[in-house]
Amino acid sequence: MKVLIAGMDGYLGWTLSMYLTNRGHKVVGVDNFSRRKNVKEIGSWSATPIRNMDERTKAFKEVHGKNIEFYEGDLREYHFVRGIIKKYKPDTIVHFGEQPCAPYSMIDVDHALFTMTNNIVGTMNILYAMHQVSPHTHLLKLGTMGEYGTPNIDIPEGFFEIEYKGRKDKLPFPRQAGSWYHQTKVHDTDNIMFACKIWDLRSTDIMQGVVYGTRTDDMIDERLLTRFDFDEVWGTALNRFCAQAIIGHPLTPYGLGEQKRGFLALRDSMQCLTIATENPPDKGEYRVFNQFDETYTINELAETVQKVGKKLGYDVGIQHPENPRVEAEKHYYNPHHEKLYKLGFKPVHPLEKELKIMFKDLEKFKDRILAKKERIMPTVYWRK
Amino acid sequence: MKVLIAGMDGYLGWTLSMYLTNRGHKVVGVDNFSRRKNVKEIGSWSATPIRNMDERTKAFKEVHGKNIEFYEGDLREYHFVRGIIKKYKPDTIVHFGEQPCAPYSMIDVDHALFTMTNNIVGTMNILYAMHQVSPHTHLLKLGTMGEYGTPNIDIPEGFFEIEYKGRKDKLPFPRQAGSWYHQTKVHDTDNIMFACKIWDLRSTDIMQGVVYGTRTDDMIDERLLTRFDFDEVWGTALNRFCAQAIIGHPLTPYGLGEQKRGFLALRDSMQCLTIATENPPDKGEYRVFNQFDETYTINELAETVQKVGKKLGYDVGIQHPENPRVEAEKHYYNPHHEKLYKLGFKPVHPLEKELKIMFKDLEKFKDRILAKKERIMPTVYWRK
Repeated sequence: MKVLIAGMDGYLGWTLSMYLTNRGHKVVGVDNFSRRKNVKEIGSWSATPIRNMDERTKAFKEVHGKNIEFYEGDLREYHFVRGIIKKYKPDTIVHFGEQPCAPYSMIDVDHALFTMTNNIVGTMNILYAMHQVSPHTHLLKLGTMGEYGTPNIDIPEGFFEIEYKGRKDKLPFPRQAGSWYHQTKVHDTDNIMFACKIWDLRSTDIMQGVVYGTRTDDMIDERLLTRFDFDEVWGTALNRFCAQAIIGHPLTPYGLGEQKRGFLALRDSMQCLTIATENPPDKGEYRVFNQFDETYTINELAETVQKVGKKLGYDVGIQHPENPRVEAEKHYYNPHHEKLYKLGFKPVHPLEKELKIMFKDLEKFKDRILAKKERIMPTVYWRK
Repeated sequence: MKVLIAGMDGYLGWTLSMYLTNRGHKVVGVDNFSRRKNVKEIGSWSATPIRNMDERTKAFKEVHGKNIEFYEGDLREYHFVRGIIKKYKPDTIVHFGEQPCAPYSMIDVDHALFTMTNNIVGTMNILYAMHQVSPHTHLLKLGTMGEYGTPNIDIPEGFFEIEYKGRKDKLPFPRQAGSWYHQTKVHDTDNIMFACKIWDLRSTDIMQGVVYGTRTDDMIDERLLTRFDFDEVWGTALNRFCAQAIIGHPLTPYGLGEQKRGFLALRDSMQCLTIATENPPDKGEYRVFNQFDETYTINELAETVQKVGKKLGYDVGIQHPENPRVEAEKHYYNPHHEKLYKLGFKPVHPLEKELKIMFKDLEKFKDRILAKKERIMPTVYWRK
């Protein structure tokens, strides 16, 4: 299949580009490098010393013997988006090309508006271009489990059948997102659902859990590593904890640490996204997958990192900073996630095994984590 | 009370400015005149020959002896929004300052993106400015009944208590909006609800039905008239039908005409918005009012206009153009609307009585409607 990857330079984008290419798909990517700029802006960097896209694609060709095409460009520019989609008429567009970070979106009004407009405009441009020049294309869009918030009832995969005052309907499950970033994903969801309805487009909207991990099997050369963020803004809970453990910084579950979320290893995310790519929805179909493997509380994650770290000889402490976010710290959480399993998803990497690989990988870049250790404790507060 | 009206130059904005001022409130307004520009862009104009804001405020002073303050400015500019809110610290901001038109948002990608960014950025700027410089302010935000779409169950006022798989919660009612414009109102709703939660702001989100009418009692001088749109893009169903009847153009209920919507006379809209202004929610409270008087099918409206027109000596035909929109033409529709009635709303103007006033008013501007009669039949198609 021909696959266009928007946001190819990112954590998942680069990883999936290699993964799909090695499965025999033809992969083309675009990126405007905003992630690199935005991480630099807050004074941080990737623990892994990532190469630029030229070096990456050359190294991939050298190591794996296959081509990955890349174009620099901005999804906010309609003519660029339309041009690339018209040229390649991809079977699938995997859309990672958004500002993906909750704390970054909460810094101030400028960051909130950058996140809103960047994410909404980019997705709208893709939808219009698909409608105009490539209506058969399947849009595989990255959303987040965070769109749902933490309701006191089960969370279905996108839609639920309900009875209300004696009548029944199947409706979109209400969204209660917890940051401006998460809100943009809800806005995208609404916009994509509507585009599929009026223009008969096809889309899979992925409500993804938090992804963790340093590698996939394609990264057999250091030049092929993907980025790994660990600071308070860009680092997600488990990745950040591993980096903290490596440098002897106490792990930092926020508040009570009883917040529960869905998690997924990087290599399992690749498996899921590949399943969605290779099993497209019908014309006009809008479907939602809840994409995660297991749910854990943040405390459970911290304790698991501590346990694995101790086995490997690290002295790992835990402390609980005041929660910078506004979120329920104790709540019911039972999201459903059957659809990907029915299509063949078999998570193969349990948490502890993956954590051992992560410790081993990150130990090599301990100095890079140490160099930015003042960017680990939270400074971005939701209420500020 | 001190009231800031965003979008003071519009159909509802100008009308409410006079209404609240005459009730003794201190009213300040802002507008960037985008509505005038955007109506001109599609080759149309207001049936009523509206004055510019200078003339309007001077005429109001002359006729009613009171001041209405006005500032030209754009809600997309944060420093402007913050400055005006900081200066006046209004008790209420009534936010009409958005691109309010479904067909305009559906013209092409540029119009879709203008609508998305204009509406989302303006509202975000207001929320941030309230948080930063005037957290006591009540944001009275115009949404639309169109946010809900036409589900097969009753539509509550914003939230509903449901049982799902044996557990209960009170959740936002799912939104299924029918145009890019309507989607922006859903995005605003999500953003405002979140801002109230994290920043303890207070807001009333008005899900308003279609408003019709040419006047309120404040318009005792022609210089004080508000705009009245009748073309296929900017004219809403009932207002457009009246203008059609005046010039002998057949009324144009789209498709089957069995689409049902909530409607409200302009003077009743003023009454509702005043009730909401004078009965603000608590700090941190986000509440939703479904603001309409009666529900009608589009055919019922057309037949009522025909009936009233015939009584007044007009020969009124009806024809059904192909529906340019993508919408259910036969559907269940039972939205609740108790909250405003509980606060004292008493709709005083039944449809037929109001229609007679509209015919009389519009007859004076028949030539202005005739001059733009080629802009009445639909040209903006959702699927195009």
